[in-house]
Amino acid sequence: EIIAAIDAALSDGPLKGKHILVTSGPTHEPIDPVRYIANRSSGAQGSAIATALAALGAEVSFVTGPADVPAPQNVRVIPVQTAREMLQAVQAAPAADAAVFAAAVADWHVTNAGDSKIKKDGSGLPQLEFAENPDILATVSQMKQGRPKLVVGFAAETDDVIAHATAKRARKGCDWIVANDVSPATGIMGGTENAVTLISDDGAEAWPRMGKDAVAQRLAQRIAEVLL
Amino acid sequence: EIIAAIDAALSDGPLKGKHILVTSGPTHEPIDPVRYIANRSSGAQGSAIATALAALGAEVSFVTGPADVPAPQNVRVIPVQTAREMLQAVQAAPAADAAVFAAAVADWHVTNAGDSKIKKDGSGLPQLEFAENPDILATVSQMKQGRPKLVVGFAAETDDVIAHATAKRARKGCDWIVANDVSPATGIMGGTENAVTLISDDGAEAWPRMGKDAVAQRLAQRIAEVLL
Repeated sequence: EIIAAIDAALSDGPLKGKHILVTSGPTHEPIDPVRYIANRSSGAQGSAIATALAALGAEVSFVTGPADVPAPQNVRVIPVQTAREMLQAVQAAPAADAAVFAAAVADWHVTNAGDSKIKKDGSGLPQLEFAENPDILATVSQMKQGRPKLVVGFAAETDDVIAHATAKRARKGCDWIVANDVSPATGIMGGTENAVTLISDDGAEAWPRMGKDAVAQRLAQRIAEVLL
Repeated sequence: EIIAAIDAALSDGPLKGKHILVTSGPTHEPIDPVRYIANRSSGAQGSAIATALAALGAEVSFVTGPADVPAPQNVRVIPVQTAREMLQAVQAAPAADAAVFAAAVADWHVTNAGDSKIKKDGSGLPQLEFAENPDILATVSQMKQGRPKLVVGFAAETDDVIAHATAKRARKGCDWIVANDVSPATGIMGGTENAVTLISDDGAEAWPRMGKDAVAQRLAQRIAEVLL
């Protein structure tokens, strides 16, 4: 690990001297002390992206929800649970040259989360009240000062992938959207492969299905080209 | 692994020839294809119990939700996701001499779970409708035919542990309740130790805080005494 850190410090990759923020994993939104709302993101794609960026010499701040996969080496890991904590961590991180929002952030949190475990008996069915979570991608994309030069969002869709992702890019104000189809039949969510479409000013560029590591390396290379 | 299997087959432990059903882990209840409701059970206590029972010679059917810890060796593993799947697996298992329900089963499932990912935009906040899940512990405890001789439930509580657990035992009709306090401050849920109270016809017997493996071994020994 020490040798890896020295390697990274001595690395002369194209991203040397650049600071890149990467978010990854799901968020967990509490219902009560034992229950929470989660999503099927394993964190594999986000970890692979952070690894690929570090391998090109970038200094990476890695803000991660409770992921299934281990955090990558050679990055600064900032663990969080909820979307609100993730936004705080993103805002507390040093100014970044690029930001990649690969986390599957919960859209909502439960506003009437209990301090005690909800009991089944007598009190009937739970009445969960929701409020929207902060929109981390839009918040960073629309920063007036200190906005990263390149802001990359992800869109995990189950239908009309390109249309939804293109609309998301315009609505959020980010530079790129990495869109993918997370329908259960694709096996992508929780799996080792990904089939993404990169949506930018140049339109929609479909990449062939490949390993998440390969997607990450290709994306890191493209990011390096922009930051050069 | 092969040697362990041979050991088990040759084992002359006090539970040789007995079939014991163990449930473990959380259940996941889908909201849509990517979101679900989960709970903080790691499956560590259930896995430890199955391991301890197998070590005493029992044939163990291990019905497990998506746990953090690996499934034990030398048991028949039946993986499930939801509470309804868990009940089906329990009912499909061969008749058991004892059943230990260590899983943290969701009390409710979402009745309006979507086939497509719920979109944040336009449609407002989610309106989740819930229905109670089947009560696996009560169902087995109240079997008219083929009820296991010993049915053991768990009660994970955050307050009034003994009172809640004693009431639960009476309501479900099980023989024993293993009660514990899962308040976040205890560090038990997701941790390596447990502090349980065994509630039976003889009243409430508080065990000292100890490793989950030690709790499992003590419980397995007590089960063996009943089944002898």
